Amino acid sequence: MSVQIPRIIVVGAGFGGLETVRALRRVAADITVIDRKNHHCFQPLLYQVATAALSPAEIAWPIRHILRAQRNTTVLMEEVLGVDPARKVLITNFGETGFDYLVLATGAQHSYFGHEDWEPFAPGLKRIDDATRIRRKILVAFEKAEIATDTETQRRLLTFVIVGGGATGVELAGAIAEIARQTLAMDFRRIDPRNARIVLVEAGPRLLPAFAPEQSDYVRQVLTKVGVTVMTDTMVTKCDIGGVDLGSQRLPAATIVWAAGVMASPAAKWLGAVADRAGRAKVNPDLSVPGHPEIFVIGDAASVMDSKGKPVPGIAPAAKQMGHYVGNLIAARIAGRATGKPFRYMHLGDLATIGRRAAVVQLGRFRLRGYLGWWFWGIAHIYFLIGIRNRFIVAFSWLWSYLTFQRGARLITHAHDDTP
Amino acid sequence: MSVQIPRIIVVGAGFGGLETVRALRRVAADITVIDRKNHHCFQPLLYQVATAALSPAEIAWPIRHILRAQRNTTVLMEEVLGVDPARKVLITNFGETGFDYLVLATGAQHSYFGHEDWEPFAPGLKRIDDATRIRRKILVAFEKAEIATDTETQRRLLTFVIVGGGATGVELAGAIAEIARQTLAMDFRRIDPRNARIVLVEAGPRLLPAFAPEQSDYVRQVLTKVGVTVMTDTMVTKCDIGGVDLGSQRLPAATIVWAAGVMASPAAKWLGAVADRAGRAKVNPDLSVPGHPEIFVIGDAASVMDSKGKPVPGIAPAAKQMGHYVGNLIAARIAGRATGKPFRYMHLGDLATIGRRAAVVQLGRFRLRGYLGWWFWGIAHIYFLIGIRNRFIVAFSWLWSYLTFQRGARLITHAHDDTP
Repeated sequence: MSVQIPRIIVVGAGFGGLETVRALRRVAADITVIDRKNHHCFQPLLYQVATAALSPAEIAWPIRHILRAQRNTTVLMEEVLGVDPARKVLITNFGETGFDYLVLATGAQHSYFGHEDWEPFAPGLKRIDDATRIRRKILVAFEKAEIATDTETQRRLLTFVIVGGGATGVELAGAIAEIARQTLAMDFRRIDPRNARIVLVEAGPRLLPAFAPEQSDYVRQVLTKVGVTVMTDTMVTKCDIGGVDLGSQRLPAATIVWAAGVMASPAAKWLGAVADRAGRAKVNPDLSVPGHPEIFVIGDAASVMDSKGKPVPGIAPAAKQMGHYVGNLIAARIAGRATGKPFRYMHLGDLATIGRRAAVVQLGRFRLRGYLGWWFWGIAHIYFLIGIRNRFIVAFSWLWSYLTFQRGARLITHAHDDTP
Repeated sequence: MSVQIPRIIVVGAGFGGLETVRALRRVAADITVIDRKNHHCFQPLLYQVATAALSPAEIAWPIRHILRAQRNTTVLMEEVLGVDPARKVLITNFGETGFDYLVLATGAQHSYFGHEDWEPFAPGLKRIDDATRIRRKILVAFEKAEIATDTETQRRLLTFVIVGGGATGVELAGAIAEIARQTLAMDFRRIDPRNARIVLVEAGPRLLPAFAPEQSDYVRQVLTKVGVTVMTDTMVTKCDIGGVDLGSQRLPAATIVWAAGVMASPAAKWLGAVADRAGRAKVNPDLSVPGHPEIFVIGDAASVMDSKGKPVPGIAPAAKQMGHYVGNLIAARIAGRATGKPFRYMHLGDLATIGRRAAVVQLGRFRLRGYLGWWFWGIAHIYFLIGIRNRFIVAFSWLWSYLTFQRGARLITHAHDDTP
């Protein structure tokens, strides 16, 4: 009589999902990874695709290639429609699959806090397709400004509003400023791209709230110096085809990028589990779903507290740690070992770059900024990229951009035109 | 009193259009380049984007960046709707512009010989967006085959038909064979990609009719060896969502790529000029349009005979030579110099690659094939790429692919799914 080996399904091949699978590499199990995309995307550098510095393929890698050597794992490109926890069945657009363990690592998407109708005018940045869409919007705005005949239209086309002063917003604002002031400076005849207006809007009192206040001040100074208008304590009250409302102030703008908030993917909904305000499933200390010890939610889709009672942030290292923990927990359960230890989050630090030669780094009490911070940021990101080829090409692209002020991926692709 | 400098409009920034503008660099004129895309695309390597070897940005470059130093030239991203030759006015989606000289270098698109309804099932390869669409189709076919549960569906998904045995068809077939046999060989669990069927269909008696018959034989041998089924003297009589009809034979296939024929862009139609069967405008020996000495059609949009009375082929060197000729002709006319010399085409040669270590080269009586031909092909293509960065990255990508059998751009982007 043959013994059935346990079936493990991991949904989502982001940082958390991949780490779960890796932790299970020596386990006699039948692992299935399900993702609706064929690639793992290195989200921390997505803003560089949106700003034409890198090509999509330089920060994305086929999931099945990453896992090709792990013979206990099958990768399927399917879209999850729901979960039946009672029957232990996952439902996708291709049918039903039974599981003994299920790990939902489905991440987050951008959220408009109840104003989902703003999405067409203010795209967010979570996936490769978002990045090429924002890239197209930015480049088309300059192209249309060169054609426009009245200064009011030109001014609207050359106004770029970034909503949200976290790491993504700061990085986008710095990069768009560099495009306008340097990359494109000599390429137009009728407009001067250096006159572009880049406005970074943050509802809270300071940029990068995860950092120390001095770091926030420094970032604000650098952004102002490169030509970004920073508006803190400012709420966006409306986004439409012509621009944004900031309370009573109207700001006409052809390009709005949303970097203000995220909402968890519907993992909690699929399970009928309790969720927090951001839609994240509230999980047990071992990351399992209450009432279902064989179902786990990890990464940006999970609501977890650290040892000080603060929420674990939605960043790559946190997702990886959760994936590592859950993978090992499942391995131990399969081996029949005791597993009493709860998940413990260790915060490694925060990094953000503002552009050429400027970044902030905060690792516990260790802090860096400016030139050194920028080097630290670059080396850390290259280190965490997957694959020698991508590391090499990204490093080369950065070196080349640094020396020439150029950007290698200034392509407007796909005919769809959503710039007014 | 100021003297009005002549207004020159060049439509299309392919090989021909760019060369025209370059030849006019020292002329006191107001030059406008109009293209509906923001980038010049290096079409000879487009098939490498379609087969995931290169990223779009590696073979495409912003037109305005290429021409940034030429201060007499303005680049506008507009779509041409028509020409009014009598009023000397070009009509675009942004309005009307007057010209003293007009050069139409608008290229060609694929043609289905009256079966334009085949297009959704059998995309052709002329632009970056075509290439990413074909890339998506090829990669999605393998993904769906891994999910499929019956062998008939799997077999259809793993059948790739390339219609047309010219350079593009041969290069695509060789590259898809390499993807199936090598790149993807270890990445799947339920299917073996090496069982994929790649069929190259050519209506004529041999592949690469522009080459000597021995070269055609060699190419057929190499393709057969790497696993391509070559069918010459075979007509495609129908393409639909399930596959192709080859006369009475039905070949179920999820992926069909059209490399069989081209049709000129509507330049001749805009002008009301006489066109040949492929829609190319019949022009005077100086490439001007009969009755309009100030309007020229060049490149793939023009029907021109060489000194032996044979049609000039629709390839990059021919377009470049025509652009160079017309640019100099306009410069001479502006300077008031006589310009009696007609355009003379000089055929430099033909190149095509079949895959790893195999290519054919024919330059007059000089012929190469195999390993040496492959080196020649690679060096020639890198030499003609625009920009040091692209040359370097393409050379690196090829070296890396050569050593690892991998392809760096295996991305399925854009949600649209047209694979049955």
